[in-house]
Amino acid sequence: MNQPIGEPAQTASMRSLMTDLFPLCRSITGEGVRQTLRRIQAEIPVSVYEVPTGTPVLDWTVPEEWNVRSAWIKDPSGNTLVDLTDSSLHLMSYSEPIRARMSLPELKEHLHSLPDRPTSVPYVTSYYRRNWGFCLRHDLLETLVDNGRYEVFIDSDFTQGSLTYGELVVPGSTGDEILITTHICHPSMANDNLSGIAVVCELAKLVAASPRRLTFRFLFIPGTIGSITWLATHRAEVEHITGGMVVTGVGDLGDPCWKRPRANHTPIDRVARNILASRGEHRVMEFYPYGYDERQFCSPGFDLAVGRFGRQVHGEYPEYHTSADDLSFVHDASMGESLRILSSIVDGIDANLTYVNLEPYGEPQLGRRDLYRDVGGAVDRRSAEMAVLWMLSLSDGTNDVEAISTRSGIDMVTLAAAADRLNAAGLLGLSADPGAALR
Amino acid sequence: MNQPIGEPAQTASMRSLMTDLFPLCRSITGEGVRQTLRRIQAEIPVSVYEVPTGTPVLDWTVPEEWNVRSAWIKDPSGNTLVDLTDSSLHLMSYSEPIRARMSLPELKEHLHSLPDRPTSVPYVTSYYRRNWGFCLRHDLLETLVDNGRYEVFIDSDFTQGSLTYGELVVPGSTGDEILITTHICHPSMANDNLSGIAVVCELAKLVAASPRRLTFRFLFIPGTIGSITWLATHRAEVEHITGGMVVTGVGDLGDPCWKRPRANHTPIDRVARNILASRGEHRVMEFYPYGYDERQFCSPGFDLAVGRFGRQVHGEYPEYHTSADDLSFVHDASMGESLRILSSIVDGIDANLTYVNLEPYGEPQLGRRDLYRDVGGAVDRRSAEMAVLWMLSLSDGTNDVEAISTRSGIDMVTLAAAADRLNAAGLLGLSADPGAALR
Amino acid sequence: MNQPIGEPAQTASMRSLMTDLFPLCRSITGEGVRQTLRRIQAEIPVSVYEVPTGTPVLDWTVPEEWNVRSAWIKDPSGNTLVDLTDSSLHLMSYSEPIRARMSLPELKEHLHSLPDRPTSVPYVTSYYRRNWGFCLRHDLLETLVDNGRYEVFIDSDFTQGSLTYGELVVPGSTGDEILITTHICHPSMANDNLSGIAVVCELAKLVAASPRRLTFRFLFIPGTIGSITWLATHRAEVEHITGGMVVTGVGDLGDPCWKRPRANHTPIDRVARNILASRGEHRVMEFYPYGYDERQFCSPGFDLAVGRFGRQVHGEYPEYHTSADDLSFVHDASMGESLRILSSIVDGIDANLTYVNLEPYGEPQLGRRDLYRDVGGAVDRRSAEMAVLWMLSLSDGTNDVEAISTRSGIDMVTLAAAADRLNAAGLLGLSADPGAALR
Repeated sequence: MNQPIGEPAQTASMRSLMTDLFPLCRSITGEGVRQTLRRIQAEIPVSVYEVPTGTPVLDWTVPEEWNVRSAWIKDPSGNTLVDLTDSSLHLMSYSEPIRARMSLPELKEHLHSLPDRPTSVPYVTSYYRRNWGFCLRHDLLETLVDNGRYEVFIDSDFTQGSLTYGELVVPGSTGDEILITTHICHPSMANDNLSGIAVVCELAKLVAASPRRLTFRFLFIPGTIGSITWLATHRAEVEHITGGMVVTGVGDLGDPCWKRPRANHTPIDRVARNILASRGEHRVMEFYPYGYDERQFCSPGFDLAVGRFGRQVHGEYPEYHTSADDLSFVHDASMGESLRILSSIVDGIDANLTYVNLEPYGEPQLGRRDLYRDVGGAVDRRSAEMAVLWMLSLSDGTNDVEAISTRSGIDMVTLAAAADRLNAAGLLGLSADPGAALR
Repeated sequence: MNQPIGEPAQTASMRSLMTDLFPLCRSITGEGVRQTLRRIQAEIPVSVYEVPTGTPVLDWTVPEEWNVRSAWIKDPSGNTLVDLTDSSLHLMSYSEPIRARMSLPELKEHLHSLPDRPTSVPYVTSYYRRNWGFCLRHDLLETLVDNGRYEVFIDSDFTQGSLTYGELVVPGSTGDEILITTHICHPSMANDNLSGIAVVCELAKLVAASPRRLTFRFLFIPGTIGSITWLATHRAEVEHITGGMVVTGVGDLGDPCWKRPRANHTPIDRVARNILASRGEHRVMEFYPYGYDERQFCSPGFDLAVGRFGRQVHGEYPEYHTSADDLSFVHDASMGESLRILSSIVDGIDANLTYVNLEPYGEPQLGRRDLYRDVGGAVDRRSAEMAVLWMLSLSDGTNDVEAISTRSGIDMVTLAAAADRLNAAGLLGLSADPGAALR
Repeated sequence: MNQPIGEPAQTASMRSLMTDLFPLCRSITGEGVRQTLRRIQAEIPVSVYEVPTGTPVLDWTVPEEWNVRSAWIKDPSGNTLVDLTDSSLHLMSYSEPIRARMSLPELKEHLHSLPDRPTSVPYVTSYYRRNWGFCLRHDLLETLVDNGRYEVFIDSDFTQGSLTYGELVVPGSTGDEILITTHICHPSMANDNLSGIAVVCELAKLVAASPRRLTFRFLFIPGTIGSITWLATHRAEVEHITGGMVVTGVGDLGDPCWKRPRANHTPIDRVARNILASRGEHRVMEFYPYGYDERQFCSPGFDLAVGRFGRQVHGEYPEYHTSADDLSFVHDASMGESLRILSSIVDGIDANLTYVNLEPYGEPQLGRRDLYRDVGGAVDRRSAEMAVLWMLSLSDGTNDVEAISTRSGIDMVTLAAAADRLNAAGLLGLSADPGAALR
């Protein structure tokens, strides 16, 4: 179940993708999202879907599509202070169009900056209340003088367009699905969330490269309204989802972090914690109803077993949601490690079967089946032989491979290999209840 | 759900009540109990009940009523050594009448003192084996000389009277009841249990001052035989009790202490521990079948969810059951804190409803309902907005407010307020199983 | 339930038995086993059973019987290097017959030694792959010179004989059984497992000396194939087994050690841990599917609640499975302590009944039944009176004596005595479900 993850090629691929996507002006709708998905299609065969403005989606409605062509502020002397072309962060997302002159005090009602981080431009949105605004460095804001009328210009529009998202389904041999999502609505910030987009692209390639038991569905969606839209329009597909991960913020220098799903004792949660525990320093966060799209997937009506994988947590690092989250904030080593962990979780959940010992009375005679040494003596407690004994001992239909791994202290890869040998020897069969491993 | 607890008035009221009750000669029956209840009636409208001697109550029988008018010992010179009028502790409770002269060795068979606390008079009873005795300071006992005949006089009697107790029921909008009891049988000791009587009186006033969902029943009863008598004569009422507290020893300088009920995972127990945990230093004791009337309420046949609230624990402090437990041993600050905690527990259990999210698929759009900010950004993890999100996330019919408080780390008051707003917005409804919060 | 364990007589008896058994050449079949069982019959009335070669037993087959009369190696000069008569460890168990001369390199293919413990002879077997071999000190092996042909002689044979085991059933008043087993297949090693044999013999005497509720079945069996054979041929008896212990390695200086059964929450496991916890330093190991015959009893088809009692654990001490595990490695004090613990576990499981409070509403009036003191005051939390109160409080049909011991902190002996007194007073009865204590 383990394939080598060729770091240099993957690193180059992820870095190139992030560099291309960085300047695009993304929001929850609009051309920036479409451009982003077209670039992703150069990596993996994502299908792109459009859901029309006005479509009722759960308690929400798909909003008008927002696009912007130009946006700037000029000072009384006509010098350009901020310009959208310099950074897509300068314009508050979903700003309405305006062309006006106004005094500095009037203008300041619409300016956003960070007094405690004066050299960073903040990321601000106003999706559901019509408004306009600009974001700028606080040190720049402080230089402005009330000596005449400032000119603001936003050439944006709201249209009866659509919400755009991308989806890639990699079918497995069973209909049970794992959902892997990442948000594509954030403008020019690298860790949040070009890192998530890039790692999920590479993960999708790895998933597609091997035959899989489970179906893996990858979603590239705008945050919140995107997951709500997908959930509203895929009620039948939701029934097949047995677990999932929201992937975001995977390139910074923080430790790997798993946020548990709302539901307890789910296989994806056990597998993710098992894998992380075997890899050293990491963080596990209990579920809380805030954060990214896990909020929607874990809402009590759906209650999907969707956790979140990332590194540093939103709001806990100073670069979060500012222009300081640029391409230099994302490190190749972190991206590679995140990809390896996600790949191991994907492999683990795919191998997490529930077996039944077919010779459960006493130990079967392993020696004559070449599953055991010939000469007596001690065996190492984590050896292949112990993996064979543990699989036989605990395969009574109530334990999947992860549960046996946790109880035995033997990693899932070694146990799955032992299960394959025992299965070939006719000593283990799959549980008659093939979905048990995912409940 | 929180009302200001006006300390000065309450403190004065409690101190005055304790001072008036201190000299009365209480026992498990008799005029001292009636005098005590009459004084309580000056505070709250307690009903007084009399259960005749000889009434079978569970495995017990209501005993003869015991009253005493006078009791003393004179030394061979005719000097009074101890006199009931000095302290009701001097006479062993339920002493039979006697008038006799005897040698010091004969007398000593009936004298009780504390060699390790020579200046304190102990509290001794002999309810169910007929005997007589006096209690005195050990340093006084040691001065006695065997130089003649001592005279003892006890003018007591046993009659076919009754056992007396008080009860106040504050009806709520539902029939589910919370039982709050305190014992009134102890003679002149302040912490055990005039403090309990005084705090429960004030608590009853607070409970009656606001409309309540739950019915609150306050009992002022003699220990052991009083709770047994009440249980035996209120089998129908017992069915409605969903939780309760025995209140005793609430005025000393010890930390607040909660003794858990015998039954596990009861709402009153969760709420009490939740409230205490939010208030700093405190102690939680596991149930053990000894102590005060929780022994009876938690007996396996009834198995009521009745815990005990107090401060220092019986037998663990040297003043316990001695004359050193006088009015100076009780501190106004402790009394006030105990009242505030009990009031919070009462409010908490009354607000501990189980809600159901009426828009459980995805998050409802809070912004258009004015339940959320307009502009994106981080929210504090214990804010009102997080309370809204937690209530929506966990209100699936299996969690009451206390359970959501424990999982979220947000206090019950903030969560209950969020629930009210969500209920008003049509997003939360009460669970169809209204008693679930109390199971 | 406690009988004095007269150490000097028992110590002498165990030491004498071990000394007599030490030189015998045991294996999983053969005359050494029969001689061993005959010597055990001098202690306790064990029945000896023979199961013919070729009998199918679960996934296995009873092997040919192996016996050996003589075995040695001579060097090129005709000097005897190793001889079976010096130690039964010198010959690899189940070695096939041979008489041959060969060069040292050829011979070395069949020699086993321990380079890191050069003065110890290892214990090696090859039951199921036909081979021959000798075991010797590594320092001796290193002196051998390739200067001619060595002569080897093994006068062994394999016959259509039988597998031999011993069994003693001590019937109790109920049909529920406790299984106590020890292996008799190991050749000249004292701790593993003459110590187990000796302690189990003395334990059987103690069990038989008192009337018992439970039936105790003692098995003296060859390892692995012996337990498999017994299980295969006693399927009906297996249904009555409610718990058990494999006893082995009980004479060394290590702390007492309990290896838990595969199944959780079994009475034998709770009782064993309760007893050990009350006795100070000890070790509890979680189940793992390796070790001694608990592997077979705990296989998932049977899933018997069979734990293992010993001291140092196989493979964790350097004397393990070598000639250094001689009679000096076993200490009388350890043997005595092991016997006392096992006796307490046996007493505990026999007394581990589930009672029902027959006066469950309120506390019964203990004073008039002489189950309580007359004069009020504090009671010690572990006193006989507290034992009475705990038994009454928790005897609701869901707690056996062990569960009450764990919750109360009072030892099982004190609680069982309280139960007897309450039973005699008509306040406690046995649960209508007499097997509950063993589930």
